[in-house]
This record gives sequence, C-alpha cells and structure tokens, in this order.
Amino acid sequence: MGNGIENFKHMKVQIISIGNELLIGDTINTNAAWMGEFMTRLGFEVTQVHTISDERGLIKQTIAESMKNSDVVLCTGGLGPTHDDITKAAVAELFGAGLIVNDEVLEFVKSRFEKWKIRFSKSNFGQAEVPSNCEVLFNNMGSAPGMWFFEDDCYLACMPGVPVEMKFLMKNRILPKLQEQFGNVGFLHARYLKTVGIGESTLSDEVLGDMSRFYKNGVSLAFLPFLAGVTLRLSGQGATNKEAEESVNKLADYIYQKAGTYIIGEGKDITIAECVGKLLKSQNKTIATAESCTGGLIANELTDIPGSSDYMLGGIVSYANSVKMNQLHVSEADLNTVGAVSKEVALQMAKGAAERFGSDIGISTTGIAGPGGGSKEKPVGTVWIGYWSRQDHFAIKAHFTKNRLINKERSMRVALEIVRRTLLGIKEMPYNMEKQLP
Amino acid sequence: MGNGIENFKHMKVQIISIGNELLIGDTINTNAAWMGEFMTRLGFEVTQVHTISDERGLIKQTIAESMKNSDVVLCTGGLGPTHDDITKAAVAELFGAGLIVNDEVLEFVKSRFEKWKIRFSKSNFGQAEVPSNCEVLFNNMGSAPGMWFFEDDCYLACMPGVPVEMKFLMKNRILPKLQEQFGNVGFLHARYLKTVGIGESTLSDEVLGDMSRFYKNGVSLAFLPFLAGVTLRLSGQGATNKEAEESVNKLADYIYQKAGTYIIGEGKDITIAECVGKLLKSQNKTIATAESCTGGLIANELTDIPGSSDYMLGGIVSYANSVKMNQLHVSEADLNTVGAVSKEVALQMAKGAAERFGSDIGISTTGIAGPGGGSKEKPVGTVWIGYWSRQDHFAIKAHFTKNRLINKERSMRVALEIVRRTLLGIKEMPYNMEKQLP
Repeated sequence: MGNGIENFKHMKVQIISIGNELLIGDTINTNAAWMGEFMTRLGFEVTQVHTISDERGLIKQTIAESMKNSDVVLCTGGLGPTHDDITKAAVAELFGAGLIVNDEVLEFVKSRFEKWKIRFSKSNFGQAEVPSNCEVLFNNMGSAPGMWFFEDDCYLACMPGVPVEMKFLMKNRILPKLQEQFGNVGFLHARYLKTVGIGESTLSDEVLGDMSRFYKNGVSLAFLPFLAGVTLRLSGQGATNKEAEESVNKLADYIYQKAGTYIIGEGKDITIAECVGKLLKSQNKTIATAESCTGGLIANELTDIPGSSDYMLGGIVSYANSVKMNQLHVSEADLNTVGAVSKEVALQMAKGAAERFGSDIGISTTGIAGPGGGSKEKPVGTVWIGYWSRQDHFAIKAHFTKNRLINKERSMRVALEIVRRTLLGIKEMPYNMEKQLP
Repeated sequence: MGNGIENFKHMKVQIISIGNELLIGDTINTNAAWMGEFMTRLGFEVTQVHTISDERGLIKQTIAESMKNSDVVLCTGGLGPTHDDITKAAVAELFGAGLIVNDEVLEFVKSRFEKWKIRFSKSNFGQAEVPSNCEVLFNNMGSAPGMWFFEDDCYLACMPGVPVEMKFLMKNRILPKLQEQFGNVGFLHARYLKTVGIGESTLSDEVLGDMSRFYKNGVSLAFLPFLAGVTLRLSGQGATNKEAEESVNKLADYIYQKAGTYIIGEGKDITIAECVGKLLKSQNKTIATAESCTGGLIANELTDIPGSSDYMLGGIVSYANSVKMNQLHVSEADLNTVGAVSKEVALQMAKGAAERFGSDIGISTTGIAGPGGGSKEKPVGTVWIGYWSRQDHFAIKAHFTKNRLINKERSMRVALEIVRRTLLGIKEMPYNMEKQLP
C-alpha cells in the first residue's frame, strides 16, 4: 500500500467571478472562497481566481485563457434577467454557438414561477435560452439555469452568483459530473482542530514543539488564528479518501496528545457555545448568565445552538447598577467602594444569576467595553468574569483591547472557555489567567 | 459649470491578491473588496482582481500583464519572513533589479521590534531587503515594508496581506502618492441609504416608481438587499468631490421624499440599533428587553453601540417558561392555554421587562426559532413581537423561515424597526404587518 501521492493527478481549476459589485467592494467575494474549499477537498488544485466586470470582451477573454490552462473552469455571475447580465451571450459568442430556447428549461422555470406565485413575464423567457452547445444544469433554487460545457479538453460550468443557487448547483449537479469525468483525482483530506484560550506562539513553540517529522508525503499543518483562539488545519493527500484521512491521523493524534485540553472540537465552524452546550447536556447541568459589558452576547451565543433551551435557563443583561442590585442582589456597598468592575461584583452577579434562574452554573461579565468609561486604575478593556456553581466559585480578571466590539467578543469567548474548562475539570484557565477566589 | 464628466479620466486599477489560503478558501478575500471600494471612491475604475498562489512564475506573469493594461496595480501578500513569502524576489526578478538592504528600513524594523520587545533575529534582516528600483513605503503597523514602483508607465504598490497593515499603507502612503501623481482624476461620490422593513420589489415598483430621469451623467442607483432590508447605493461622478456630491443629491432628495420613512440612516455600516439608540437618546427615553426566541440578540445589538448604557437599562433572556412567569409575571394560565408563542405572552413579556427595569419601553420576542418545536398551528418561524410603553401597547405576528439563525436575526431587526417607527410616530408597521392590540 503506497500513500497514493504518486497517483495524485493535480487537476487544475480556475474560478471566474463576474460582477461590478465585487470590484467596487459592495459585495465580498465569499463564493470564490466556498468554491475554492469545495474543489480543494475533492483533490483539485485551485490555481487562480479572476474577478472581472460585466464586460463582454473581458468575459470571453478571461474564460478562453483560463480554459487553456485548466481542467475545469467554474464561472459565477451575470446570469440574471436584467440588461447587465451578459455572461450567457458572451459564452455563446466565444464558442460560436447560437442561443436556443430549451423547452425543458422553459417548463422548469415556469413551474418554479407557479410554485412561487410570481407572474411569468416576457423577459423571463430569456432565462430559458441557453447556448446550443451546453448541457443544462437544472437549478432548483432559482430561475437562471446553470450550464455545463466541454470544449478544447476543458470543462466549463456557468452558474448564477447567488450563493444559495451556486452551492446547490455545485453539490447536486457539478459534483456528480466531476466524479463521472475525472473519477478519483486523488483526495485531499483536511481536519480543523479548533483551540481556544492559548496564543499561537505558545501553542506552537511550547506546547507542540518541533513537528517537522510529520510533514512528508503532502501532510501539512497551518495555524489560523482567530479572536481568542487558533484553528489548526491538518491536511494530507491520498489516492482514496481513506488514505488521505489516514495520512493526517498520526499528526492529529500527536496534537491531541500534546494540546488536547485546548481543543474545543473539530470543524471550521464549531463554536465554543456548541462545545459548552454539549458538555452541559451530557453532564445534565444548566446555566444562566448575568451580563454587563457583554450586553447579552453570551446568552445570544448559547441560544444560537438548537436545543439550547434544555440547559440555558435564562439571563439578565444588567447594564445599570440599579439592575445589578435589584435583579442580582449585588451589594450596594461593594458597588460604592470597589465599583461595578470588580471581583466582588462579578462573583455576586454570577451567583445572582444562578439563584434567580435556579441553574447549576452562573456566569457573569462586568467590565469597561469602551470607548469611554476608562480610568487609570481600570482602563478600557478591563473585564472581570465571574463563575459560580455550588462546588466552585471564582472570578478572573482580563485585559483586552480599546475596541468595544472586540472586548465584548473576547469576554464572551473567555467566559465560555472558563465554563468549558471547569466542566472538564481542567485546572488551567485560558491564557494562564489566575483564578481569584472570593 | 459642467458636471465634470467630460474631465473624468477613468484611470484603471487592477488588484492582485497573493496567497494559497485565499485559493483554498481558508481566508475570504476581504482585502480586495476594501481596496476596490477605496479606489472606486477616489474615482479610479477597478477592472480586475486576480487571486493567485505563492508561485514565482505566476506572480511575475500576473503583475506584468496587469501593468500593461492599468495605470495602477495594487498587490498584497507574500511579504512575510517565511520561506513561502516570495513576492519581493519575484518582483525584483521581473524588473531585473537586485535586492538590497535598505538601512533606513533596517533601523525602522529594528526600532519596531524594540518597541514590541521582540528579539530581532537573523531572519528578520531579510525584511529590510527591497528591490533596488523601489521606493519604500514605511509600514507603522508591521515589520514588512511596502514598496512603490514606477515602470512602463504604470505604478505598482506591493503591500503585506495583513488587513490592518494594508489599510495603513493605503491611507497613509499610497493615497498621497496617487494624489501627487494623478492630481484630480475625477471623483465618484456614493451615498448609501439603508431601508428596513420593506421588500425590494415593493420599494422599487410601488414606492419609488420610475426614476430613469435621474440616470444621466454617470448617476446610478443600485438595490443591495440584506436580511430584513435593502440598502440603496446612489452614485455620481464629478471633477470635484463637491460636483460629484451634487450630482447624487437630487436623486437622494427624491428618494427621501418618497421613501423617507423606511430609511434608518446613511452609510453601509449603520445598524438599526444605532438608529434606535439615537432616537431614544434624543427623546430621553429608556428601553428594556424580554427575549425568548432571540435569546439575547436584541440586547446584544443595542449594547454594541457606545454610550448605550444611557438608554438601555437591561434585559431578560427568558428561555424557560418558569422564567417567563417568575421574572416577567407572565400569566401561567395563558402559558397553559394560548401557549408561550402568543400575542398574550408577548405583550406580558414586554410589559414585564419595562416594569422590572423601570424603562419607558419594553420590547419582547417569543417564537419558534427552530429547527425543532414547530407544530401545524405554529410552524417553525412563527414569532410574536411585543411592544409596551405607557402610551401604546401592541404585538405583531411574523412568519419567518425554517433557519434558526435567520429567524433570530430577522426577529431582532423587525423588533427594533417597530421601536424606531413607534418612536417616530409612523403608523405603518414593517412589511405592512398588522398591529394586534391586547
């Protein structure tokens, strides 16, 4: 059994994104990133993305040049019913093909319109026209059909630029075609290990150490930092998906062994709230929040997770001091002496939330989000996070940034990471911050 | 006074984004959108964006071809200290220039490192090397200098791909150079009018009507839909910024006259929470929230605005029925008969929040966010939004989607839009939804 690298075909893909809104910055090109990831996972090599205006000559030229140097070209945009949607005409011209009304498409589009209760107007007939040399890719998500061409030893797909329509066509129409045409082009397997509460350099230099022995036969590791954490992308190649998977598993095993406590889960999109939710559910525990500087963000993150009503009992957003006193039984004396941004108040808020909602755990934040309100002793970015359960209560002091939204976001992430670690019995707190007992 | 269009020079710009992380979809190319907007506002025409891998031949070829067809080429990425950062070497090779250590850059980088208390290692010397034919653009935000070239009648800027560094160089180093080299290239002025609570087609067909008489001399209007609203982009051109401004003002005046009540403010980034915050402040009113299906999102949005502690007194996230009863005095009988997702409970929650926190206004949401929990009578996406003030109390029933996060987001937007309209004395509710009195 080889590792399959010698069979890796390195099929090349180029992506063409058409639309003025992309060039003038009104729309960020998320389609290209999504297609890039999709094709990379299938083992294709994405070599270029071209973003161009709705201009006939440029569309023709870019498609023609991309097809010369690629096995597959994926093109989005310019397929709508209005006058500036000219991709279809440009492609027909490039291939010297006429535009013909495809009856099947016409029926399909008409039936869509009926379903949506929209009147089928004359201008919609144009949507049923396709170049005579294309194969239609039926689009269940919209009225503009996708198109599939094979010319000069290269496949070309044209899709609408609406993300949900593009994604539908990629998954349901183009993926089967790619598998049919290219068979197994080799697979690239990637695992995303998401860590929270440790800096990139500490993770790399002190926790993981030298890992060069793993980097062979196409196995690689990338550090992708995000707010309050680092995602590790492990990738490997193989002639089968299984081979590709196995090639990264050794590296993953090593990372789990060295850095397992920092990993909240796998997948680019996993959130700390999802991870905390799973732990609460499995341990049959409930939580409540008392938020000052995060202003509802922790509750919002927790309730983004389907089924969170099982463990998230409720929360209080206590912006005003009077709310802290009346709703959470924070001591007026403490508010007057040590102030709202203090260990004492953070602890009382966490306890107050747990008691008020009858939850096992209370989590609180109180801090100076900014831009105003800072002082020499408590500059903007100073945040206390309180944790309360019957077994354990403590607070942690953090110093974040001068930016209000970043302070809210980081406070939320660190607070939930504290919950995660405490639920797992991990003694070390995020970023080695110190537990401060009452 | 002409409108300056005849002097509009139409200087062409191409953008080159270098980096494998962009092609495989790990990073979304937000830099290109930002630069596109920046250059468009200065009156330049962005014709293409090329996203390419860190490959020497491709970098050289793409830069050379872009320079042939442009007045300015902006290039980001591949300037870091590691082995896969090869932009500098590729550019030097393209221009047949040597790499020389620039003493001023070396001192600059060293002083940066001292300030950040980072050890200056041997590999950092490489960062002070630049092609001999470039002018250095000092980068106060990082250790990699920017570079400015003039070859074959085209300007080329090379910048690091880190967004904060790129933006610093664009604003502080490249903008003055463009103004010096091109003088006044003509200006494009854009105004973004953000509307909420009305659909794109109703706004276009029924409220605004035919506006073709405004579309001359480069004036144009684009509809950019977002969740629960539509942003109108009005743009115009002129030889001076003032001329460009004036060219769009007539169109803007007409739109305000016809659709003023739907406009929450100007600017792409303005939020409904910001708009509501300003109104509350100017009317000296306070608000409190009682959130079930939005789970803290309304409070979070309101507290994203600096100074919101002046009018946002607090909120309750009442996920559990027991919380609705105990914290908000929702009637147990109503919960048992009409259920938590009902007009009655929405109204009681809004009133409960206002009373508990002593605010002028209480706003509430109760609904089925999904994916589970729906029934035939109350499918997923059914949401009641309650409003309470001493003068006015009502609830509104909305039907959103099957997607949990979209339902949370739309409920939040519609709830805040209801507050905005009520504060302004606008009788019509978002999307013509009906006020239901107690």
